[in-house]
Amino acid sequence: MMKGAYLPGNSTTVLREVPVPEPGQGEVLLRMKASTICGSDIRCIYHEHLGKGPEGYQDVIAGHEPCGQIVKTGPGCRRFTARDRVIVYHISGCGVCNDCRRGYMISCTSTGYRRAYGWQRDGGMADFLLAEEKDLIHLPDDLTYADGAQVACGFGTVYEGLEKIGINGNHAVLITGLGPVGLATGALCRKLGASLIIGIDIVPERMQLARDLGLCDEVLASGPSNVEDVRRLTGGRGVERAVDCSANDAARATAIRATRKWGRIVFLGEGGRVEFNPSPDIIHDQKTIYGSWVTSTWLMEELVERLVRWNLHPADLVTHRFALDRAADAYTLMASGKCGKVAVCFDEEL
Amino acid sequence: MMKGAYLPGNSTTVLREVPVPEPGQGEVLLRMKASTICGSDIRCIYHEHLGKGPEGYQDVIAGHEPCGQIVKTGPGCRRFTARDRVIVYHISGCGVCNDCRRGYMISCTSTGYRRAYGWQRDGGMADFLLAEEKDLIHLPDDLTYADGAQVACGFGTVYEGLEKIGINGNHAVLITGLGPVGLATGALCRKLGASLIIGIDIVPERMQLARDLGLCDEVLASGPSNVEDVRRLTGGRGVERAVDCSANDAARATAIRATRKWGRIVFLGEGGRVEFNPSPDIIHDQKTIYGSWVTSTWLMEELVERLVRWNLHPADLVTHRFALDRAADAYTLMASGKCGKVAVCFDEEL
Amino acid sequence: MMKGAYLPGNSTTVLREVPVPEPGQGEVLLRMKASTICGSDIRCIYHEHLGKGPEGYQDVIAGHEPCGQIVKTGPGCRRFTARDRVIVYHISGCGVCNDCRRGYMISCTSTGYRRAYGWQRDGGMADFLLAEEKDLIHLPDDLTYADGAQVACGFGTVYEGLEKIGINGNHAVLITGLGPVGLATGALCRKLGASLIIGIDIVPERMQLARDLGLCDEVLASGPSNVEDVRRLTGGRGVERAVDCSANDAARATAIRATRKWGRIVFLGEGGRVEFNPSPDIIHDQKTIYGSWVTSTWLMEELVERLVRWNLHPADLVTHRFALDRAADAYTLMASGKCGKVAVCFDEEL
Amino acid sequence: MMKGAYLPGNSTTVLREVPVPEPGQGEVLLRMKASTICGSDIRCIYHEHLGKGPEGYQDVIAGHEPCGQIVKTGPGCRRFTARDRVIVYHISGCGVCNDCRRGYMISCTSTGYRRAYGWQRDGGMADFLLAEEKDLIHLPDDLTYADGAQVACGFGTVYEGLEKIGINGNHAVLITGLGPVGLATGALCRKLGASLIIGIDIVPERMQLARDLGLCDEVLASGPSNVEDVRRLTGGRGVERAVDCSANDAARATAIRATRKWGRIVFLGEGGRVEFNPSPDIIHDQKTIYGSWVTSTWLMEELVERLVRWNLHPADLVTHRFALDRAADAYTLMASGKCGKVAVCFDEEL
Repeated sequence: MMKGAYLPGNSTTVLREVPVPEPGQGEVLLRMKASTICGSDIRCIYHEHLGKGPEGYQDVIAGHEPCGQIVKTGPGCRRFTARDRVIVYHISGCGVCNDCRRGYMISCTSTGYRRAYGWQRDGGMADFLLAEEKDLIHLPDDLTYADGAQVACGFGTVYEGLEKIGINGNHAVLITGLGPVGLATGALCRKLGASLIIGIDIVPERMQLARDLGLCDEVLASGPSNVEDVRRLTGGRGVERAVDCSANDAARATAIRATRKWGRIVFLGEGGRVEFNPSPDIIHDQKTIYGSWVTSTWLMEELVERLVRWNLHPADLVTHRFALDRAADAYTLMASGKCGKVAVCFDEEL
Repeated sequence: MMKGAYLPGNSTTVLREVPVPEPGQGEVLLRMKASTICGSDIRCIYHEHLGKGPEGYQDVIAGHEPCGQIVKTGPGCRRFTARDRVIVYHISGCGVCNDCRRGYMISCTSTGYRRAYGWQRDGGMADFLLAEEKDLIHLPDDLTYADGAQVACGFGTVYEGLEKIGINGNHAVLITGLGPVGLATGALCRKLGASLIIGIDIVPERMQLARDLGLCDEVLASGPSNVEDVRRLTGGRGVERAVDCSANDAARATAIRATRKWGRIVFLGEGGRVEFNPSPDIIHDQKTIYGSWVTSTWLMEELVERLVRWNLHPADLVTHRFALDRAADAYTLMASGKCGKVAVCFDEEL
Repeated sequence: MMKGAYLPGNSTTVLREVPVPEPGQGEVLLRMKASTICGSDIRCIYHEHLGKGPEGYQDVIAGHEPCGQIVKTGPGCRRFTARDRVIVYHISGCGVCNDCRRGYMISCTSTGYRRAYGWQRDGGMADFLLAEEKDLIHLPDDLTYADGAQVACGFGTVYEGLEKIGINGNHAVLITGLGPVGLATGALCRKLGASLIIGIDIVPERMQLARDLGLCDEVLASGPSNVEDVRRLTGGRGVERAVDCSANDAARATAIRATRKWGRIVFLGEGGRVEFNPSPDIIHDQKTIYGSWVTSTWLMEELVERLVRWNLHPADLVTHRFALDRAADAYTLMASGKCGKVAVCFDEEL
Repeated sequence: MMKGAYLPGNSTTVLREVPVPEPGQGEVLLRMKASTICGSDIRCIYHEHLGKGPEGYQDVIAGHEPCGQIVKTGPGCRRFTARDRVIVYHISGCGVCNDCRRGYMISCTSTGYRRAYGWQRDGGMADFLLAEEKDLIHLPDDLTYADGAQVACGFGTVYEGLEKIGINGNHAVLITGLGPVGLATGALCRKLGASLIIGIDIVPERMQLARDLGLCDEVLASGPSNVEDVRRLTGGRGVERAVDCSANDAARATAIRATRKWGRIVFLGEGGRVEFNPSPDIIHDQKTIYGSWVTSTWLMEELVERLVRWNLHPADLVTHRFALDRAADAYTLMASGKCGKVAVCFDEEL
């Protein structure tokens, strides 16, 4: 038997004893090592179960950012074996629809098979996790399991968005929203070569964290002068690239308006709406707005290769670690917002 | 002396006698042959003068879509000579700022020199026009002057937007708004290879014109079921590309929502606002929205080369032609909206 | 028992009786309907076995362009079922390496699993074929099995190359080499919108076929004046896009040199070498040369969707059909070069 | 009167007294401050006059990398005024052909007007230079005149090539040829974010210079094991990007072969030939080869903006400075190859 954490709603966390699963065809059993909490877990499950039907939380073990070590493989595995250290891409698709074939299991169109870890199938908040081999990303020895957990959802999502808009030394970058996704954006933009990184948030603790971790060159408090402030910091020109990690309407408009002629904006933050005036905001300055959702398995593998090359450790954004027995405390803290990333850890990662 | 048409506001047109100008350094004098009316002339000048300061109408001869024949060149001209048939790129920039050097005189940053024909310097609604050589586009013999007038603003603007999003046989295209810009979009998409063209408008005459000219395969009346209609016409998938030529908030949202996963939308229509929900509308389907403004002189030259290759005649969208003496009637008709493109013509073009 | 055709070398074909295989986990059994012969079968297997080691022909049933109908599925299949009509992507990769995850099983890096149909695992020249579900592409009712066989290798490869360089109505296209790959290039360029298609070959029968099928607007005999000829046909400018399907050094140089300033060239033809002078040939004209190999499973699916939309039938390039019993005649004819595409067909396709 | 240096051939340099020119319409007179020597000056003019006709050296004052200060403007100048510090884009085109309108005066198609400074019109090796306003790039106070001279040709050319292939932190970059262009490539790749820079050359002094200036992380002596060496330095994968600055056939093949799957190679070095085997060298690894020539005026302006942002000083590559009176020594040294960049300087730059 093993323990697993469930989120019945109403801002509660429950631990239950369940049998350790057995890997079937093409499956592996992982000993969990690190499982981080995503903002969407809080927003859509912890407080109340927002999603309905197949998109909703199915009363499974929580945790969609899992990283661990294979202890057993089922028949038919072709690449991974026992003792391999692995990240779990957080949505298990059918593997054979067009979206899955592109590597974007996030948008698997096979309703009978698409199941997100921690939402529709058991996730990482347990001693062991059953995963499909096709969902695994090899974790190099140079990265820790906590690094890997960060890649499973957040860093992967950010990397995809940054690849869509292209980031290098030519670019000053604006990040609206400095939660875990915004901080990951700062960390990756730095390594991709961005020459200036400006962050905006409303929570003083987050602003301070961005400064303390050196992930932003400038941090602004959210407010009506933000566009003007960003222009002032960029010689009057605005940023070449902007990344919205806030999902806030006003912040999204700021991201658009503070972007320079011919610049690009990508929306990563989930939920909410946006409103703007196309002529002055994007037409006259020839700007482009990208929507970007999660990433592909193959780009996640590329990211992991780059993290090693860059000596970048996503776990540096983890501010608090808890044992599985204290999973409830982990969710409570994450829900408070007074933290960076929160992780449930095991063994050597604790 | 020559006659020129002015737009004092209050939906009136006035003809005045003025001296024929003399070309100076780097300038040419054109005998006007065709001068078409743009929707922005009606919206921003004819009814009332909306623009203020240097962006506003400066009580000059109207007409920013001019096409004619050079009758005299000033000193220093390097490429064009008398008898050349030419289109006039409709904004004369300084020629040496960064935007002008890219060919985008539309966004010339030199406030002392940027002057749009028909807005801040005399335009094409006159017997003769004084233009700078750098603003000229060669008009091949295979195209008429009325074809050329259409290129000066509308077709050039559309071509730029279509080049930004890329159009070929892989694409079903949605066009929201079937005024002259929307019709030009249909004509160009057809030649670029679009496999299906769907148009949406609210005015029955425009819908009929799009059908009669064969520029749309399907024409829908604007309404709440448009997204569903477009999906039905595209096997449930939506269009790969959408072009907003309406500047209408609801139509823009339709353009976004009726676009397929990984698709691209470009906004060409000027004015108004847009509002949407990023998660379902662009993030989860990995869509991209482009703002696009006018075009460059060099891309306008490419367009002209292509028009000849395609045997495409933009003047086919001109439904009514008037002599300069009847310029007032031309503006009245254009303001009514019950027409395609309206042109003031001279000599063999009348 | 069933019959299968083997290629022992020395330009011979042998039929053998073998057991009908049984689909295992994730596998399907196909009733073969059409199996076309690729130039590489002749070049690398039929005359003599050129490839060595894991890349070489492993004395299996030949045919790497198979298309058929599922008669039985093994356990674990998630998308396809009995009676489905399917194309087989011609290389079965491991499915979980980075290349496979991008959909490019052609370059699967798992030497233990990568096996091309008809080269290292039994192919389509038999009554039945055992395939992995992950290698299947759905064949819509609007396409025939012979259409599908053409997609499995040739049309898929061409589509990938054309997507890399981008083809639309802006482009005159040069095709060097009018074998089956060159003809497929003409057919797809036509549907993508190319405004002029020029072909070059050395074999009169092929030149005539390109003309008869309407796949080229102009066909030139290979010779030293080709660059000049192409420029003459394009108003002195050269083509905007060129596709080498010849693998011939001189033809590749022609493709490069006949391409216009800022143009793009893609190399599809396999083998041989190329030599050119970078300054005049690509640097001063800002040209780009793309290498392109086969395609991904997901782009092959897109191609199939487009074929239906375009009402394009790749089987129109099939000039000769043989029953399996006459497979030897099929290979002999294909080796002679005096044909278009040659197919071994079954049942309703014969 | 003023002095100017001429290159009559036979590896000689001659100083002559000529009148100070007077700026006409659209022209400016510069007080020269720095004028660097390009490899092409040595290869095509200094030793013997290789170019013929309008492309050849026309017995004018040498120097096509000029930077100075405006002392007088002719009539009609719109942007620049006396005392402005300026770089001269090194080819003066007609300004109104399609290439000039894109900003690429390097490929101006107007044979009557295209004249390179130092080749067909007087260049920077004199006390004063007459230039057209449209050829000028503003030099910010943060950059020296020697920095500016470096931008006029070499750094501009490199930046264009790097923008074509895209460089950021995802990329290990190989540079073949560590002359001034190769060193500029290293300097710009560093600022764009490249995570590893490997250089190859044959001259020990150049290899040492690349190391001393910190422009390469690894420097290899040219040799048959280069491809293997580069793969070893990149975890067996090869570089994501390669830049040929050598114009050497073997080095170009190395650049292609040492590049990773899906990678991009750009050729900048002028002259010579290249030979390779498309199937293994570019087709099977889906690689792309770009030709790139000089740059546009507008991208040169962007580069200057970036240099300030990056605090990057191109003049750091200048190893030797001479007064105009010693121009002969400057050319002799540059011809020896035992140096970095060589400059003729004036006033505060000496």
